[in-house]
Amino acid sequence: MHEDFPRIDPIRLLDDLKTLRSFGATGPGVVRLSLSPVDIDARRWLAGRMTDAGLDAAIDGVGTVFGRSRKPGPALVIGSHSDTQPTGGWLDGALGVIYGLEIARALGECEATREFAVDVASWIDEEGTFSSFLGSRSFVGDAIDDSLRSARNHEGLLLGDALAQAGLANTPRVTLDRKRQRAYLEPHIEQGGRLEASAKLIGVVTTIVGIREFQLRFIGQRNHAGTTPMAIRRDAGAALVAFIAHIDDAFGRLADADTVWTVGRIDLDPGSFSVVPGKAVLHLQFRDANPNRLHAMENALVALVDEWNGQHLVRAELIACEGAEEPVTMDAALQQHLAQAADALAPGQWMHMPSGASHDAQVIAQHIPACMLFVPSIGGVSHDFIEDTAEQHIVLGCEVAARAAARIAGALRR
Amino acid sequence: MHEDFPRIDPIRLLDDLKTLRSFGATGPGVVRLSLSPVDIDARRWLAGRMTDAGLDAAIDGVGTVFGRSRKPGPALVIGSHSDTQPTGGWLDGALGVIYGLEIARALGECEATREFAVDVASWIDEEGTFSSFLGSRSFVGDAIDDSLRSARNHEGLLLGDALAQAGLANTPRVTLDRKRQRAYLEPHIEQGGRLEASAKLIGVVTTIVGIREFQLRFIGQRNHAGTTPMAIRRDAGAALVAFIAHIDDAFGRLADADTVWTVGRIDLDPGSFSVVPGKAVLHLQFRDANPNRLHAMENALVALVDEWNGQHLVRAELIACEGAEEPVTMDAALQQHLAQAADALAPGQWMHMPSGASHDAQVIAQHIPACMLFVPSIGGVSHDFIEDTAEQHIVLGCEVAARAAARIAGALRR
Repeated sequence: MHEDFPRIDPIRLLDDLKTLRSFGATGPGVVRLSLSPVDIDARRWLAGRMTDAGLDAAIDGVGTVFGRSRKPGPALVIGSHSDTQPTGGWLDGALGVIYGLEIARALGECEATREFAVDVASWIDEEGTFSSFLGSRSFVGDAIDDSLRSARNHEGLLLGDALAQAGLANTPRVTLDRKRQRAYLEPHIEQGGRLEASAKLIGVVTTIVGIREFQLRFIGQRNHAGTTPMAIRRDAGAALVAFIAHIDDAFGRLADADTVWTVGRIDLDPGSFSVVPGKAVLHLQFRDANPNRLHAMENALVALVDEWNGQHLVRAELIACEGAEEPVTMDAALQQHLAQAADALAPGQWMHMPSGASHDAQVIAQHIPACMLFVPSIGGVSHDFIEDTAEQHIVLGCEVAARAAARIAGALRR
Repeated sequence: MHEDFPRIDPIRLLDDLKTLRSFGATGPGVVRLSLSPVDIDARRWLAGRMTDAGLDAAIDGVGTVFGRSRKPGPALVIGSHSDTQPTGGWLDGALGVIYGLEIARALGECEATREFAVDVASWIDEEGTFSSFLGSRSFVGDAIDDSLRSARNHEGLLLGDALAQAGLANTPRVTLDRKRQRAYLEPHIEQGGRLEASAKLIGVVTTIVGIREFQLRFIGQRNHAGTTPMAIRRDAGAALVAFIAHIDDAFGRLADADTVWTVGRIDLDPGSFSVVPGKAVLHLQFRDANPNRLHAMENALVALVDEWNGQHLVRAELIACEGAEEPVTMDAALQQHLAQAADALAPGQWMHMPSGASHDAQVIAQHIPACMLFVPSIGGVSHDFIEDTAEQHIVLGCEVAARAAARIAGALRR
C-alpha cells in the first residue's frame, strides 16, 4: 500500500518527551537551565537519539544540538529549545524539539517522503539564562561576541566558562547554509489560553508580536505623611497611579483584541507607611503584531507624558528600555501548508492566531521562511511547574506538523 | 523695676541649642540615635547644663534626662526628646528640651516667677530606635517590660544591652508624681508647612491626630504578559490601581482640610516586565484629629472591600496593622494660656492647628493636662539633614513658651 503521508509513532513520541522530562524533573515540572550539568546530560541524550534516527548529530560550540539529515538538500529545519525557565514546565521548547526528531524519523519511514531532508535543532538558551536566543542567533550569523565575552547567569558564571566546563570551548558552531536550509518550522505550546477558550486544538501562527518596554519615573516631593496636608503634597505615588488610568484610556482606544499592555512592577520611594513618596517608578510593557500600532502606542505615551508635565508639579519621565522587538510575520506559503494539514487532520478545530510570546522562529525568520504551529496549554499556563497539554493533543499536534512538514519539504524540492 | 514675666536669654538659648547640635553633627543635620555613644555623651552634657541651672538632674534607668526643680510643687514639666532619626535635623525634639532648660532658668531669674517649679525632661527614644516613646511611657507608668526584654535597634542590639553599655542597668527610673507634676508643655518644630503657608509664627496645638494603618492585598492570577489577552486577565496590580481611585473618592467625601491619607508602598508580585502580577499589596495610612472621622474612614474601607469582592474576580483583603493611635486632645485651659501668651507677643501671627505627627505629649496627656506649641519648619521639612527654623522664630517661640509657662505655673499654684 502506497502512503502519501508519513505516520508518526505516538508511543515513541511520548516516550522521548518523557525521557527528556526526566532530565531536571522537579515535581511535575522541570528545572533545566541552559548549560547546567543536567542540561548538558539532556543534550548528549538528545544527540544520541538523533544519531539513532539516522541524523549526523552533535552539540555545537555554543551548546545547540543539531542533527543534520544525510539526505541532500533542500532541507526543512524543525526545532525549538530544550532549556527551561528557573521554574519550567516539561513541554515549553521540549515539545518542538521532540516533534522535530519524531518527524525526521516518520518521513524517513514513509515511502513518499524518505528522500526528503529534515534537519533537527535544539537551540541553546532561548530562555536567556545567559543570553536570549543565543543558539538561533549564532546559527543565522548574528553577532554574539559580546554575549560570549560577558554574559553571565544568575550565579555570576560567565557564558564562556560554562561552555568550557561543558567541554565545548573549541567546538565549531553550526551555521545556516542558505543553499541547503530553505525553511524553518517551530512547533510549540501556546503558553496562553486562547485555543482552550476557542475550543481549538491547533494554532497556525500569523505573526510573532513586537514588544516595547518603558520605565515611567515620577519625581515629586518626599514629605511627612502626617504633617503635609493633601492640598500641598507632590505625591509621586499618587501621580503614578493617576497616570496608569491615562495609559489605560489611550491604549484602550488604540488596541484591538490581541493588543496587550502590562504594568509589571511599581516602586515607591522610600516605601514606608509614614512618608509621602518623593519618587515612583513603574515598568510598562506592551505587545502587538502590528508595527504601526506599536508605533502609535509609543507616540501616545510620549504625548501623555508631555501633556502631564504641562499640567502637574510632579514631573514624569519616560525611559525606553532594552528589550524592544519588532513584530515578525510568518511566511505566508508555509502558513498555508500548516493550514491545509490542520484542515485535513483537525477540520474545524484549528485557527490562525498571533504568538504573544517570543520564539527562536523570530530570529530565523529574518533569514529564511519560517512558520510556527501551536498546541493548547491547559489553563493557559506556562513557565510554571504545572504547565501541561493533554496527551491526545500532543499527538494530534505532531500528526499535523508531520503532514505539514511533508508538504513543505516536498514543495522545497520542486 | 518689677517684672511680671520672665525674660529668656536668646544668646544662651541658641548657644545651648548649637552645643547640643554638635553631638552627632553630620553636615547641617544630626545623627544621634537613642542610646548610641554620642547620644549618651549629649545626655551627660544636658544633665550638666540642668545642674548648672539649679535643677536636680540625672539620667534615669531608661536614658531619660530629668531635671527636677528644687522648688516645691505644684510643678510644670517642660520637655521633648533629644534623640534623632537616622537622618535627623538639629531641631526636631532638641528645640523643646533646650526651651525647657532656658525657661527653667528664665523663671528662676524673674522676681515674679522665681518660686515657680519647672521640671525639665528629655524623654528617651521618642523616635523608636528601640521602642517609640519609651521615656514618656516609662515616666507615666505604662508597661515597658516587653520593650526592655526584647526591643532591638536596626543593628540587632537589645535595648537591655544598650542600657547596660551606657552604665544604666541598675539606675532607678523617674516616674510621674501626680501630686507634684500637674501639667506638661511640649514645644516642638511643626514638621509641616502649614505655619509657613499661613504666614504664622506660632502654632497652638488643638489635637494630636489619630492614625490607622492597613495593608490591602489583591489576589489575582499570575500569567504570561504576552500570551494572556486583556479580556481574560486577573491582574492583581491593575486591581490595586483601580482600588486606590475608590479610596480617594470615598475618603475625599469624608475628609476635611486636615484629613490626610497616604499610599506609601506598593508591591507587585513577581514584579517583572513580562508577567501579569498575580499578587499585589499596598500600604495605606490615614490620620485625623476626629475619632468619629477615623472610624467612618475605616468603615468606608471595609465597605469598599466588600463591594469590590462582590464585583471582581481579583479578590481584595483588608489587613489592619499595628500602629493605630487614637487622637489626643490638648488640655483646653493650657491651650488658653498658650493662646494668650501668643496674642501678647505675636499678635495676629499665631494660629490653632492639629499636630499631624506623633509626640511624647500624647502619652503624657493620658495622665496629666498637656499642651504643645509649634514653631515654623522652613519648607515644611523634617526628618532630614536640611531641617531648619529661622533664628528669630526660634527665639520668639521660646519667648511665647516662657510667657505661657509662667502663666501655667502661676495658675497651678492657685
